[in-house]
Amino acid sequence: MSATIMSLAQTQAFLDSEFPQMQAGGRAYHLEAVGPLSARMRLEAHERFLRPGATVSGPAMMALADYALYAAILANIGPVALAVTTNLTFNFLRKPASGDLMAECRLLKLGRRLAVGEVAITSVGHEDIVCHATGTYSIPPR
Amino acid sequence: MSATIMSLAQTQAFLDSEFPQMQAGGRAYHLEAVGPLSARMRLEAHERFLRPGATVSGPAMMALADYALYAAILANIGPVALAVTTNLTFNFLRKPASGDLMAECRLLKLGRRLAVGEVAITSVGHEDIVCHATGTYSIPPR
Amino acid sequence: MSATIMSLAQTQAFLDSEFPQMQAGGRAYHLEAVGPLSARMRLEAHERFLRPGATVSGPAMMALADYALYAAILANIGPVALAVTTNLTFNFLRKPASGDLMAECRLLKLGRRLAVGEVAITSVGHEDIVCHATGTYSIPPR
Amino acid sequence: MSATIMSLAQTQAFLDSEFPQMQAGGRAYHLEAVGPLSARMRLEAHERFLRPGATVSGPAMMALADYALYAAILANIGPVALAVTTNLTFNFLRKPASGDLMAECRLLKLGRRLAVGEVAITSVGHEDIVCHATGTYSIPPR
Repeated sequence: MSATIMSLAQTQAFLDSEFPQMQAGGRAYHLEAVGPLSARMRLEAHERFLRPGATVSGPAMMALADYALYAAILANIGPVALAVTTNLTFNFLRKPASGDLMAECRLLKLGRRLAVGEVAITSVGHEDIVCHATGTYSIPPR
Repeated sequence: MSATIMSLAQTQAFLDSEFPQMQAGGRAYHLEAVGPLSARMRLEAHERFLRPGATVSGPAMMALADYALYAAILANIGPVALAVTTNLTFNFLRKPASGDLMAECRLLKLGRRLAVGEVAITSVGHEDIVCHATGTYSIPPR
Repeated sequence: MSATIMSLAQTQAFLDSEFPQMQAGGRAYHLEAVGPLSARMRLEAHERFLRPGATVSGPAMMALADYALYAAILANIGPVALAVTTNLTFNFLRKPASGDLMAECRLLKLGRRLAVGEVAITSVGHEDIVCHATGTYSIPPR
Repeated sequence: MSATIMSLAQTQAFLDSEFPQMQAGGRAYHLEAVGPLSARMRLEAHERFLRPGATVSGPAMMALADYALYAAILANIGPVALAVTTNLTFNFLRKPASGDLMAECRLLKLGRRLAVGEVAITSVGHEDIVCHATGTYSIPPR
């Protein structure tokens, strides 16, 4: 039994219907888990995200962090709310390894009007964080 | 006579050779001006950047800000240096209008080791800033 | 005739009554101007803010930026609202010169629920920005 | 046996000699632990840090986060290096309870030129994070 309002499958389905363009060019963002104030999303290292050297680009990591945070919020507040990103801060720590990336995110606050979370992105199979992000989302009146 | 180390054409050519994937799917990022500690870049509102409602997505704006700051740094330090993005902070202020976006950027510091700049993104033909960003870039020893 | 809701004197008086502790140890924060979406505040280089070398400390600059942004919001929305700082981002660009600091701030957005602004801090008599900040404030329902 | 380069006592002594003004008005910042890529610092709720309502002010939390990160870096690189804060980002999540605050910090990267860390500040005896910060520090050539 899930402690989130939407299950993993429900959250993925909602994201797919709201943001079909994220998967344009082939499904690459895979929501792997949602939990109380948390979510985990994997980014497949599709050609379209790669920089020379076969590592995922900075902009692709930024999109992943935003999308994963959005998924965590949605799973925890339900599909009625349309949260809007208001602030995102990224620290790029190291070059990722080639291959898929994993975003682990945790909501630090889920208020009535604002949600704030952090994301740690790692290369799958590696421990070091390659990109750390924090984000704030405005939640419309419900 | 330009006060930058690389001209507009040289900077665009260098970006094209270093980051060909940015223009994959059709040229969309157009560097329009470079100057002392500044640059201006336009993002064409290609289908691949659009959200429902025909406005450019947040991740596309983040990529634009990063790319424009990178261009400003390159034009001002020359092609030998490979700057690396270390920090980016975005404030999303309003939904953009449909259509192209313009990024105006200004370097606040261009040191030997770090460059810091800010970017204001507007919808072309509108005054209000839709996204404001600041970024830090690490410059390798020359 | 002022285009702000509160005049300079009214805004300073409101700040003094709400945040008396900012001036504890001697008046040091001087609001010098308020305008439409803007404010300017000077920080006197009191002993209590100094680092070895007689330059103002980083934390003192952070307090100044927050306080100046708060003043700009207050002047533009009036004394009824109690805005709360939700996000602050600082880029420290250079060591300040010894002496007073000046914070120039500009609101990038003044919405019903969120205000976002930027601040440039300089050493009085010098042009270079020593610290750049952006801040977000949550505005309670009015 | 400590895995850090400086012990807790050595780090505190170095901070005291470098930043005596942090403790002006009475010792309030207490470094409680240093470890590999980590540090913990407590801020006593002295009168000089309080806002109306007896909670610690935002600027006091910002100073605490910066100081704690600095301590974590020092303990892990030794007293020779003079790191300089280049970027700090704060998310203010909730009003703190009255009383002391605790800053737990963790370095996400400790490179040759840049160190990046995050800090979670809680009210002592409470679990919820009241302020989350990330910071970047430039480390001079050694």
